[in-house]
Amino acid sequence: MSPTSKPASGERTPLLADGVPSRNSIDSLRRAEQEDAAIHGTPLSPTPTARTRTVRELLLFSWALLATAGVIVLAVVLQHRNSTTNPPTPTDPIPIIPGDPGTGTPYPAISLPPKKDRKRNLIFMVSDGMGPASLSLTRTFRQHVNNLPMDDTLVLDQHFWGTSRTRSSNSWVTDSAAGATAFSCARKSYNGAIGMEPGFKPCGTVLEAAKRAGYKTGLVVTTDVTDATPACFASHVGYRWQMDEIAMQEIGEGLLGRSVDLILGGGRCHFLKNSTAGSCRQDDVDVVEIGQKKHGWGYVDDRAGFDSLKLGKNVSLPLLGLFAERDVPFEIDRRHMNDVYPSLSEMAVTALKALEEATKDSEKGFFLMIEGSRIDHAGHINDPAAQVREVLEYDKTFNAVLEFIEESDTEGVLVATSDHETGGLSTAWQAPNELPVYNWHPEVLLQANASAEYLTLLLQQHMIANPVEEQQQLQDWIREDLVEKRLGIKDALEIEINALASNPLLAMNIFSKMVSIRARIGWSTHGHSAVDVNIYSSGGPGTEDIRGNVENIEVGGFLRRYLDVDVDEITRELREKMVVDVKEAEMTGRDGHPEEWFVEVDGLVGYATA
Amino acid sequence: MSPTSKPASGERTPLLADGVPSRNSIDSLRRAEQEDAAIHGTPLSPTPTARTRTVRELLLFSWALLATAGVIVLAVVLQHRNSTTNPPTPTDPIPIIPGDPGTGTPYPAISLPPKKDRKRNLIFMVSDGMGPASLSLTRTFRQHVNNLPMDDTLVLDQHFWGTSRTRSSNSWVTDSAAGATAFSCARKSYNGAIGMEPGFKPCGTVLEAAKRAGYKTGLVVTTDVTDATPACFASHVGYRWQMDEIAMQEIGEGLLGRSVDLILGGGRCHFLKNSTAGSCRQDDVDVVEIGQKKHGWGYVDDRAGFDSLKLGKNVSLPLLGLFAERDVPFEIDRRHMNDVYPSLSEMAVTALKALEEATKDSEKGFFLMIEGSRIDHAGHINDPAAQVREVLEYDKTFNAVLEFIEESDTEGVLVATSDHETGGLSTAWQAPNELPVYNWHPEVLLQANASAEYLTLLLQQHMIANPVEEQQQLQDWIREDLVEKRLGIKDALEIEINALASNPLLAMNIFSKMVSIRARIGWSTHGHSAVDVNIYSSGGPGTEDIRGNVENIEVGGFLRRYLDVDVDEITRELREKMVVDVKEAEMTGRDGHPEEWFVEVDGLVGYATA
Repeated sequence: MSPTSKPASGERTPLLADGVPSRNSIDSLRRAEQEDAAIHGTPLSPTPTARTRTVRELLLFSWALLATAGVIVLAVVLQHRNSTTNPPTPTDPIPIIPGDPGTGTPYPAISLPPKKDRKRNLIFMVSDGMGPASLSLTRTFRQHVNNLPMDDTLVLDQHFWGTSRTRSSNSWVTDSAAGATAFSCARKSYNGAIGMEPGFKPCGTVLEAAKRAGYKTGLVVTTDVTDATPACFASHVGYRWQMDEIAMQEIGEGLLGRSVDLILGGGRCHFLKNSTAGSCRQDDVDVVEIGQKKHGWGYVDDRAGFDSLKLGKNVSLPLLGLFAERDVPFEIDRRHMNDVYPSLSEMAVTALKALEEATKDSEKGFFLMIEGSRIDHAGHINDPAAQVREVLEYDKTFNAVLEFIEESDTEGVLVATSDHETGGLSTAWQAPNELPVYNWHPEVLLQANASAEYLTLLLQQHMIANPVEEQQQLQDWIREDLVEKRLGIKDALEIEINALASNPLLAMNIFSKMVSIRARIGWSTHGHSAVDVNIYSSGGPGTEDIRGNVENIEVGGFLRRYLDVDVDEITRELREKMVVDVKEAEMTGRDGHPEEWFVEVDGLVGYATA
Repeated sequence: MSPTSKPASGERTPLLADGVPSRNSIDSLRRAEQEDAAIHGTPLSPTPTARTRTVRELLLFSWALLATAGVIVLAVVLQHRNSTTNPPTPTDPIPIIPGDPGTGTPYPAISLPPKKDRKRNLIFMVSDGMGPASLSLTRTFRQHVNNLPMDDTLVLDQHFWGTSRTRSSNSWVTDSAAGATAFSCARKSYNGAIGMEPGFKPCGTVLEAAKRAGYKTGLVVTTDVTDATPACFASHVGYRWQMDEIAMQEIGEGLLGRSVDLILGGGRCHFLKNSTAGSCRQDDVDVVEIGQKKHGWGYVDDRAGFDSLKLGKNVSLPLLGLFAERDVPFEIDRRHMNDVYPSLSEMAVTALKALEEATKDSEKGFFLMIEGSRIDHAGHINDPAAQVREVLEYDKTFNAVLEFIEESDTEGVLVATSDHETGGLSTAWQAPNELPVYNWHPEVLLQANASAEYLTLLLQQHMIANPVEEQQQLQDWIREDLVEKRLGIKDALEIEINALASNPLLAMNIFSKMVSIRARIGWSTHGHSAVDVNIYSSGGPGTEDIRGNVENIEVGGFLRRYLDVDVDEITRELREKMVVDVKEAEMTGRDGHPEEWFVEVDGLVGYATA
């Protein structure tokens, strides 16, 4: 299928011919690009018209608006508030977790076999919010789209290693902060904790210890680089929403000085002083400037800057690359804005090359954390069409890391896992008052070529631009331009279109639900769930320790053991010297969530299902 | 806590003291019994009153009523009907699966390393309908109930081996028949297929080949022994609901004669001629009599009969043990009727001992399939309180098998997996129009001491016994005797009690939902979902082949390779000699579902969520 041809409605088009060479026989990036073209379907507009150019400019200008209104973080904040202050519901009067939530639970040390003093690289990948169902969802989507045989699998599937139990110290259901602290500190902690154990006791991270031991270190994400997962490796604050402080610590203003050599991702707004356009800081601190002047960071903040890095061949460390004010757009949308935002795999390949170059004359290798951050966001929004593209991009990135390790002269290990599941995703959904159907419909996800987030942005922009539009005209536009053209839904109900026109602030929910129910995909929450998540690995020294079903802190234990670094030394130093204002942290934990994270319309709050 | 003391409402009682010896230091069955006492909470009635004795007699008398009305199979039947005749919904016009559903997909042969001609036993366990979320659900429940540390795990967790991809040849979501055919024949087939490949071509099973090679063989289940999973190992019919025929083939009336040596489970009604009380056959064939007279089967049909087997020390093969007209009650209920029904672990231990004894002078060992059948049923009903007890009993059985292998002089391997996930279970649920809460509440499941199925039976019996009862009186009885005493729910809403009183035929749904929403457990369907399921193993020769993420037919491939038996020879014989009436099979597939499997009330059908 040529990218400009439009498939007839309902027609099953074999998108890759049977004669395409098998996975291992061709270069995976080229293969992945071919598949991308197939998987993502028709572009929004292959030859942009003036109108779509205008829409797009508007879009780029105000992407941050949505991100700010963005209720992605809402669930995390709220759950914390619930778990620390209010009982979840009046029907749930009983304390949740046995044991004292104020006590950190260290993972018992496992003695490693003695190692030669060999150089080594460790790449740790986090698929934020990717639970087991995301894999069958994405694998099936790929089989369907490319008309692949039923035993065709993701690269991830071929490196399945085990599963990880994810509960935090104060809840059966973790958030990303406690989840990432389990990896970075190898300690169970409370929801919201950034490099902290219960009682607001800072814990050294594997990245900090690696830096001190002479490794180069990097963080690559598609959300804010100050978000929980990256933050847990390079900062220590009481709660995850203290992002102003996290940004400062990440560039080297914390007690330990600079621990990170390379940061690529989104969240630029946390690094700009509040008098600058595009800042989201409370204060007037210019973090970029401090980073450049005091800590020697190079800085790039756009696609041109990224391209100048030449996929890592032209990088001087330390380097801070912030390519979006907040999140990098979902892959389903980003690919139509490739000249603005780099992809996860592009950033990862760049980081691998840059770190390899920077360590080529060193006795130590590097530690790199790469996060597929927005799998989680697609889960929070309950948007399966966005999620499958996020997971495919993560799979492509995983494969690129495998290839890097294979081609490198330096020993390397890749371990990949999730912090938790998001959304309570199920690849089956029974419609109310219908009998269950034993199937689901990947073709519905294929027909959608934009995320619910992006469509919501378009809808809100349209309504702002056309304040006096007739309701009927608005509904026609929604039906034709958003629902039919971009979601690929031709049978939208009057009630659905009407709901979109009447509740633009809840449109993300409605768009997602329109896709999910037609695809017969179920979700149980806009928050997280407690199901065990998968672990993937290249294999290699010590990885047998985390084969099978393990606690998430055992994954953290592996990281430090593989690098053979002394994290406890960092912990001791932090505990001796770092002053944590416990009262402040507690206050922040309880009441520190900005009100703009809430969306409330007609008594419906946030992501609450309609 | 003594079993007769009643915990104060809402009080967290440490049920096992900290000083209890660790898992490996005490005999597991004793340990399991101790935990059982804790986990199952207060018995229905420790000292039965006359009233509860009457209720119980009524219950035993009419257990089959519910099972017959039982809509467990409904979903399977319906989905098949949908997938073979009607498009699932008007919004889903696109064909589902690439490739020709009429073509069986053989799993490519993997050459095994040459084996010594050693004696070996293979135990294959199936946790029907147990998806990944069932594990975190049950593990957390157990941690909560016994106040265990956060790294305490199920025995299953400690033997995690990998995951299995479950799609069938004609749907992304399999049923148990295609799922079990993937194990028994190592072939992908269509939903509904019993030992058949697409096109109604019979395929030899590992059990049949094992029997021919000189192994002893057994099937142990807690549902009808003619249900899909056991049927797929010892019979060949076009569709799973041809249970009259399945029963005949299982006792030896099929083309291959008798392949099974030991059958323990439920489903007695399929073996009694239709003129007998408690029969569910269409015809007047006395299958038990044919089995006894023609094929030499011993027969036991009650607890006394089971006890006479002395946990396997007093068994002559072949032996048919049918301990319930249909299903053995859910473990949460069965434990209060221990003098009527044996448990899964008791049946499994009996089978292991009997088969060991029967093969002690043989050069060949045995093949035993053990199914935790009703994990699936709890999933279909969406009853989490029943499910955790089913999974715990399965875990106990798994442990008993491990111990058997360890203590046996004969080499043995245990492989355990699920055929599919049931229910779209999620260990998190967001209430409509509320924000998500990052937690769920195992204490709610602990407070429930009866299944939704059992309570529905009690409700229906009560209404039959009290036809002229005032509505208010009925509602009071429901609230006090069912909801408060047995579900442990003290805050039931008027609307919930009213719904139960008004819709007794849908009460299973309502009871389950009352528990699920309070525990914050989500379900997306009363059918199955496509998520990969877990594989567990003792390890042993050849088990590395099924480590990681594999297709379900690869598990089937392992079974035949481990036993080193020629299944293809059986397939050839079946294809040469067996006459499958394709027209009849197709008719059966389309229209062969008895109408009594449907439940329809006021436009609400079956399990449809209210």
